[in-house]
Amino acid sequence: MNEHPTSGAPTWALSRVRLEALSDGIFAIALTILVLELKVPEIADRHSVAELARGLGRNAATFASWVLSFILLGVMWYRHNQGYRHLRHVTRGMTLFHLVQLAMAAFFPFCAALMGRYPTNGLSVVFYTGCIMIYQWATVAEQGVAARSGAVAPESGGIDHRRFQARNLRGAAVITFVFLVSLAKVLID
Amino acid sequence: MNEHPTSGAPTWALSRVRLEALSDGIFAIALTILVLELKVPEIADRHSVAELARGLGRNAATFASWVLSFILLGVMWYRHNQGYRHLRHVTRGMTLFHLVQLAMAAFFPFCAALMGRYPTNGLSVVFYTGCIMIYQWATVAEQGVAARSGAVAPESGGIDHRRFQARNLRGAAVITFVFLVSLAKVLID
Amino acid sequence: MNEHPTSGAPTWALSRVRLEALSDGIFAIALTILVLELKVPEIADRHSVAELARGLGRNAATFASWVLSFILLGVMWYRHNQGYRHLRHVTRGMTLFHLVQLAMAAFFPFCAALMGRYPTNGLSVVFYTGCIMIYQWATVAEQGVAARSGAVAPESGGIDHRRFQARNLRGAAVITFVFLVSLAKVLID
Amino acid sequence: MNEHPTSGAPTWALSRVRLEALSDGIFAIALTILVLELKVPEIADRHSVAELARGLGRNAATFASWVLSFILLGVMWYRHNQGYRHLRHVTRGMTLFHLVQLAMAAFFPFCAALMGRYPTNGLSVVFYTGCIMIYQWATVAEQGVAARSGAVAPESGGIDHRRFQARNLRGAAVITFVFLVSLAKVLID
Repeated sequence: MNEHPTSGAPTWALSRVRLEALSDGIFAIALTILVLELKVPEIADRHSVAELARGLGRNAATFASWVLSFILLGVMWYRHNQGYRHLRHVTRGMTLFHLVQLAMAAFFPFCAALMGRYPTNGLSVVFYTGCIMIYQWATVAEQGVAARSGAVAPESGGIDHRRFQARNLRGAAVITFVFLVSLAKVLID
Repeated sequence: MNEHPTSGAPTWALSRVRLEALSDGIFAIALTILVLELKVPEIADRHSVAELARGLGRNAATFASWVLSFILLGVMWYRHNQGYRHLRHVTRGMTLFHLVQLAMAAFFPFCAALMGRYPTNGLSVVFYTGCIMIYQWATVAEQGVAARSGAVAPESGGIDHRRFQARNLRGAAVITFVFLVSLAKVLID
Repeated sequence: MNEHPTSGAPTWALSRVRLEALSDGIFAIALTILVLELKVPEIADRHSVAELARGLGRNAATFASWVLSFILLGVMWYRHNQGYRHLRHVTRGMTLFHLVQLAMAAFFPFCAALMGRYPTNGLSVVFYTGCIMIYQWATVAEQGVAARSGAVAPESGGIDHRRFQARNLRGAAVITFVFLVSLAKVLID
Repeated sequence: MNEHPTSGAPTWALSRVRLEALSDGIFAIALTILVLELKVPEIADRHSVAELARGLGRNAATFASWVLSFILLGVMWYRHNQGYRHLRHVTRGMTLFHLVQLAMAAFFPFCAALMGRYPTNGLSVVFYTGCIMIYQWATVAEQGVAARSGAVAPESGGIDHRRFQARNLRGAAVITFVFLVSLAKVLID
């Protein structure tokens, strides 16, 4: 039963393998259902290339939002993967922040749909950047708890993990700044 | 082939790894398709922040239901994870109750949608709490069968498993009470 | 790299772990998106329990189809799981039949939706039973190819596998009979 | 913790297991949500087999597109599986191309829907073949980077991998040709 690497972990620790499975599942689904927002346009002349092109062109913002959101979710998944390499096990406190991360990843397709539909509306930007901001701070918090509770594997820990966390913080600072600017714009208007 | 830890298990036992994979998959999907209930509102002036805010505000109950349902499903997954740590293998009797659990997890997005749409309707509450109640009793039954059929791993079994099962029973009692109250309210009205 | 148990297998053999991962994924998704067919009814008085009950009651057939389809897909998954315990690796010929199985599992939610919507229409029954029939024969074919190409693990093979295959054949015979009856009914009417 | 076979890999390498999990997830979902495009037709007489047959017949192109798309995605998954057998680890450069692959797999259900809806419209064919073409070139690029950066496992590498890559290139050439023909047809009309 040693494919569940919780041996040596406190008895209340979660199976890292299963948390990764849930996370990979949620990311995979969020990445894939983004496409459900792209709608086949209704056109009168089924054979007309020009009309279909115009129909698709009207949804250009939705396509752009799809591309941007796929890249952002992809980067989140990549960073998530990198972060979990450092961990030996997952404590209860980390799980809490982890579920916040997963909630934001699962919520993201809605933000992407909002952005694709109303790209020029300031509120869409607030939702979109707010969702990423909460995700990023949850990452920072989870890795911070991990470092404090001894869940970081010694072989990869120390300098490596501190550098990883510094990057997370920089990312959180940047997205918080963008969020605050977009919030200010909405409130001032 | 020992990554499928069924060695030592009766030949009719299921691969625990694959049952966990199916379960994690269903939870991941249920958690993610909850978001499909959140709809981008239709507004007349695409640039109006106030109008979009009002449009989203009208769906406030759906958002609240999304948050609540995500947390509840997250807790179910967490408990599921904890429960399976105790098990050595999965017997046929357990599979039956397990499929009831998975059915309720898969059915839950419908209950969440109903609740988000008609939060003040007593019947929504009956469905919502009823779904969780059946899930919880299926958990109790599965773990009970596990304990009786020797599927609980000796190292983690005994006291540990009994405490886990006691918690399951408390949870089942609480949700059954809430369900009965909501049912009574519907029947009396 | 030995978590991919293809060592000793022909070089063109697929990773069984990944085929199982794809299969568990498709079953999990099919089981979960069945619920998307259940729609929250539109009612005039949001607080009326009676009206909501009537609205949901009109979709009773859809609910019944959901329950039946969940059970059938669950059984398919369970049998799939049992079948793969016997296998050492997955050959190209088996993959072909396997993709037919997966195609039917993925197509099943459509049949379930058709059945839920038009339960009294003979054509729905033809689609529904036809889908299961093709699935079942693909199972028989895959396991038959497995037995012939030496992909059945010796420790579990022999009698065990023959019994498993006998059951598959009985299942295929039963569902083929049901399919032919439903087809005859449609053609005669 | 050795179920994550990154030992011996550069520290910035991704866990191959998790990238495979994400990929299998995305393929499984894309394969399954293809079915959401198949709609249950609205008919007046619920019992009429003829009317239901006519209703389904009107969507014949959507069914044909479903079958074709399922086969193509299945083949992509199969080739992906074959490709990853050769790899020891996944470098950052490979991840980039890999995300392009996954983006195209996730985008494919939209192309399938477009094709199913407007099969006689040249633009649908451009999207459909364009999506496969980008996928295929991303495969070629990823495996090329893998070969150059030493990520190909020595035991399976050399001749085996070169033959695999040659096939990828032939596939890419064929689909590029088909894409260019369909593009030319659209531009000339």
